[in-house]
Amino acid sequence: MRTADQPIRITLFAPDGRMGKAIAAAIADDTGFALSSDSGDVLIDFSVPNALQDSLDRATSAGVPILVGTTGLGPDADAQLAEAAKSVAVLRASNTSLGVALLADLVERAARVLGPDWDIEIAETHHRHKADAPSGTALLLGDAAARGRGGQVKAERGRDGTGLERAVGAIGYAALRGGTVAGDHDVLFLGPEERIILSHRAESRMIFARGALAAARFLASKPAGLYSMRDVVSAL
Amino acid sequence: MRTADQPIRITLFAPDGRMGKAIAAAIADDTGFALSSDSGDVLIDFSVPNALQDSLDRATSAGVPILVGTTGLGPDADAQLAEAAKSVAVLRASNTSLGVALLADLVERAARVLGPDWDIEIAETHHRHKADAPSGTALLLGDAAARGRGGQVKAERGRDGTGLERAVGAIGYAALRGGTVAGDHDVLFLGPEERIILSHRAESRMIFARGALAAARFLASKPAGLYSMRDVVSAL
Amino acid sequence: MRTADQPIRITLFAPDGRMGKAIAAAIADDTGFALSSDSGDVLIDFSVPNALQDSLDRATSAGVPILVGTTGLGPDADAQLAEAAKSVAVLRASNTSLGVALLADLVERAARVLGPDWDIEIAETHHRHKADAPSGTALLLGDAAARGRGGQVKAERGRDGTGLERAVGAIGYAALRGGTVAGDHDVLFLGPEERIILSHRAESRMIFARGALAAARFLASKPAGLYSMRDVVSAL
Amino acid sequence: MRTADQPIRITLFAPDGRMGKAIAAAIADDTGFALSSDSGDVLIDFSVPNALQDSLDRATSAGVPILVGTTGLGPDADAQLAEAAKSVAVLRASNTSLGVALLADLVERAARVLGPDWDIEIAETHHRHKADAPSGTALLLGDAAARGRGGQVKAERGRDGTGLERAVGAIGYAALRGGTVAGDHDVLFLGPEERIILSHRAESRMIFARGALAAARFLASKPAGLYSMRDVVSAL
Repeated sequence: MRTADQPIRITLFAPDGRMGKAIAAAIADDTGFALSSDSGDVLIDFSVPNALQDSLDRATSAGVPILVGTTGLGPDADAQLAEAAKSVAVLRASNTSLGVALLADLVERAARVLGPDWDIEIAETHHRHKADAPSGTALLLGDAAARGRGGQVKAERGRDGTGLERAVGAIGYAALRGGTVAGDHDVLFLGPEERIILSHRAESRMIFARGALAAARFLASKPAGLYSMRDVVSAL
Repeated sequence: MRTADQPIRITLFAPDGRMGKAIAAAIADDTGFALSSDSGDVLIDFSVPNALQDSLDRATSAGVPILVGTTGLGPDADAQLAEAAKSVAVLRASNTSLGVALLADLVERAARVLGPDWDIEIAETHHRHKADAPSGTALLLGDAAARGRGGQVKAERGRDGTGLERAVGAIGYAALRGGTVAGDHDVLFLGPEERIILSHRAESRMIFARGALAAARFLASKPAGLYSMRDVVSAL
Repeated sequence: MRTADQPIRITLFAPDGRMGKAIAAAIADDTGFALSSDSGDVLIDFSVPNALQDSLDRATSAGVPILVGTTGLGPDADAQLAEAAKSVAVLRASNTSLGVALLADLVERAARVLGPDWDIEIAETHHRHKADAPSGTALLLGDAAARGRGGQVKAERGRDGTGLERAVGAIGYAALRGGTVAGDHDVLFLGPEERIILSHRAESRMIFARGALAAARFLASKPAGLYSMRDVVSAL
Repeated sequence: MRTADQPIRITLFAPDGRMGKAIAAAIADDTGFALSSDSGDVLIDFSVPNALQDSLDRATSAGVPILVGTTGLGPDADAQLAEAAKSVAVLRASNTSLGVALLADLVERAARVLGPDWDIEIAETHHRHKADAPSGTALLLGDAAARGRGGQVKAERGRDGTGLERAVGAIGYAALRGGTVAGDHDVLFLGPEERIILSHRAESRMIFARGALAAARFLASKPAGLYSMRDVVSAL
C-alpha cells in the first residue's frame, strides 16, 4: 500500500509513442511520480484503439485505476470502458490538458446562463499537418456547450457559400491550419452588441503529459467508476 | 399589484443623463417594461454620488426595489445601501452588462480551480477620453479573481521600469486607451505552457441599459436585501 | 470650377438605401462635403448591379468622377467600368473602409516578404444574418495576399473532415457568424514557431460611409482612369 | 573565398550563453551554415555590453561582417559600432526575429498612412520572470511607429490613476507578465469606429536564433556599413 509521501508509480502502455515519451519526461520532472515497468499504482494508455481491451484487462487484473487517452476509439469502446469501470477507476479523456478541462467547464456554465440570443461559435488553430477538422478538442468544447444548453444542438461545420442562414441555436465550427501552432481554441458567445470569448492557448504539447499526471493523481485514490477530466478539475 | 403579463414600470432618476436616456431607449424597445414618471415597480438610479440618500429614501418610502448604478460612490455608501436593504431589495452594480456579470462569475471559478502556478493579468481597452485606469470593470473582475483565490491579493498596476519581479499571486492590470472603443476586457490566466483567456467585448453602451432592465426584472419580485449582478446571472 | 475651400458636392444614387443614408449622415458631419441632388463633383453609387450602366452613363455625360461601391456586380461589369474609365475617374470598391484598404496593402507586403514556410489563413466574423461566406472583404484580403505571393493561389474554404492535408501555398478561409458583429477580419501568417497576425475590427458600418467620402475626395481631382482603394491609401 | 555552395562559417562569441547555444542548435539544423571556432565568414555576438569593443576589433581585424545582438549596450555603443562599420558590415539588432522585423516595417507604414485620428497603443505579454517593462521589442515597435509619424512622439507608459487625458499623438505601452509566454506583441491603431491590430506571436525563442542566421546570410556578402534587421527583411 502506497503512503502519501511515496511517489505514485505509473505504468505506461506504449512508452515509446509520442505521448508515452512526453509523460516519461513529465514524470522525470516531478518527484511525486515514478515510472514502473511492471505494475504501478495507475496505468496510463496512450496507444492505439485496438489495444484498448488488453489495457483494460491489465488494469482490472491488477486492480489498479487506468487513464485512457487513446484517440480514435471505435464504437465498442464505450461498452468496454463501462465494463472495466465496474471493478476499477477508469478515466477516458480525448484531451488531458487541465486548462482545456477547465475551459469546458466554463463553456458549459456560460451556455447554461446565456439564452438563445447568444450564438455559439468555436474556432481552433493547429499546425499545418493536422489531418482532422474540427479538432477533437473543439468537438469536446461543443459538447460542453450543448450540455449547457440542455440537449442536442445542430453543428454548422465548414461554412462556405451564399444564401446561408445561421440556424437558431446552432454551434458553428471553424478550423484554421498552418505553421507549428500547438493548439488554440476560442469559444465565442456572440450576443446582442456584446461578446464573451473563452479561450485556451497551448504553448507546447507537454501540457497534455502534465495533465495526464494530474489525472493519475486524482485516480490513485478513487473507487471503481467512470471518470472524466471534468471530475479532475472539480476536485482541484 | 402587478400581474405577470403587465409591463414592469420603471422610474428613472436622472432621466436626462447619458444612462438615463439609454435606459429609456431600451424600455421603448421592450414591451416587458414601461416608463413611469412618479412611482414605478422598480427605481433605477444612475445619477451622482451625493443623490444616493435621496434615491434610497424614495425607494424605502414607496416600498419598491432600487437598482443603483451610480459610480464613484463615497465611503458612506456601503452603510447607506445596507440600511435601505433592510426594508427593500437593493442592487448595486458598477457595471450592469450581463456579459460582464457572467464573466466575473467565470473568472471567480477559474481562479478558484487554478493554483498559484497560473498568474492572473487583466487587460482592458477603452476610448481615448476615459479618465481612469484601470477601468472600474477591470477592478470588478480583479475582485472576482481575488474571491476565487480566497482572499486579498496584491495588485500590480501600471507596470513600468527595470529590475521588476512579478510578485507571486499578484494580479496585474494594464490599460489601453484610444479611438472609440466601447470597452474590451481580457482576464488572462497564464500557466505553465498554457493559457486561459476570458474576454468580454462591448460593441455599444446600450448593453448596460439592457442589463439594467434585466436587473430590474430580477429585483421586481425580490424581498428586502442586498443583491448584485452575480445574483442576476445566477438566476438566469 | 470648385476651389479648394469649397465643399465637395456629392450626388448619391440610391440615397434611400442603407449605404446612401449612411453617406448622407457622414456628409452632414463633415463640412468638407455637401449633398447635391442634381450634379455633383463626384457621383457615388451604392445601389444594385443592374443600375451600373445608368450610373456610369451619368458620370461620363456630366464628366465627373464616380465611386462604385455596389456589390454583386455581374461578369460584364469589368468591361463597363473600363469603358467609363476612358473618360472619367472611376473607382470600384467592394469595401470602402480605409482601415481595410490599408490592411490589404500590409497583407500584400507581408505575403511578398514571407516565404512559403509561412501559411496564410484568413478568419472573419460577422453578424448572424450575413448570407455569404467567406465575406467579400476576406476574399479581397486573400487577393492581396495572392498578389504578394506573385500569382494564383489555391483557396481552402470550409475545412471539414478527416485525412486532410493542407496544400503548400494555399490560403485558408474560415467564417464565423453570430450576434451583431459589424465585421472582424484576421489575416494570419503562420510560420515556424512564430506568427504575424494582421487584423481589422469594424465597430460600426459608418466607417464604410466615411471611407467612401475619403475616396470621393481622392477622386475629385483625378484624371480619367480606373482606381482602387489602394490608390486612396497610397495617396494619404 | 567562400563559394555559393559552401556553408557560411559562423564564429560565436559567448557560445555557452543562452543565445549562443540556441544559435549553435540552429546551425546544426541548417546545412547552409557551419560553426567555426576560430575565424568564420560572419561573427555573431550575443554576449555582454562591455565585450562589445573586443568583438568589433576582432571583426575589423579579420575583415569579416559582424552581427551584434547584445542588449543593454551603453551610450558609447553607437560610436563604436559606427567606427567599425567604416571597415566591415555591422548589423545591430535588439530582436533578431524576422517576424518582428517585418512587423516593425508594417507598423511604420501603417503609422505613416493613418492620421492623428488613429491612436497607437502597444501591448506585450512575456513570462513572469521578465525584468523590464515595456519590452525592448515593444520600444523597437514604438520607434517604428514614431518614424512613420515623422518624428518624436510622447510615450505613455504604465497608465494608472484618475483624471487621465490621453495626449494627442502619444504612443501608449502596456506590459503583461505571467506564466511562460515566449513573447506576444500587439500594435493597435485605434481609429474612429475601426481598428487595425498588427501582432506577432513567438512560440519559442529559437526564432531569434534562426533570424540571426538569416541576418548572417544577409551580411555575408555585404560591404562595410551599418545595417539593421529592416535591411534583412527588405532584401527577402
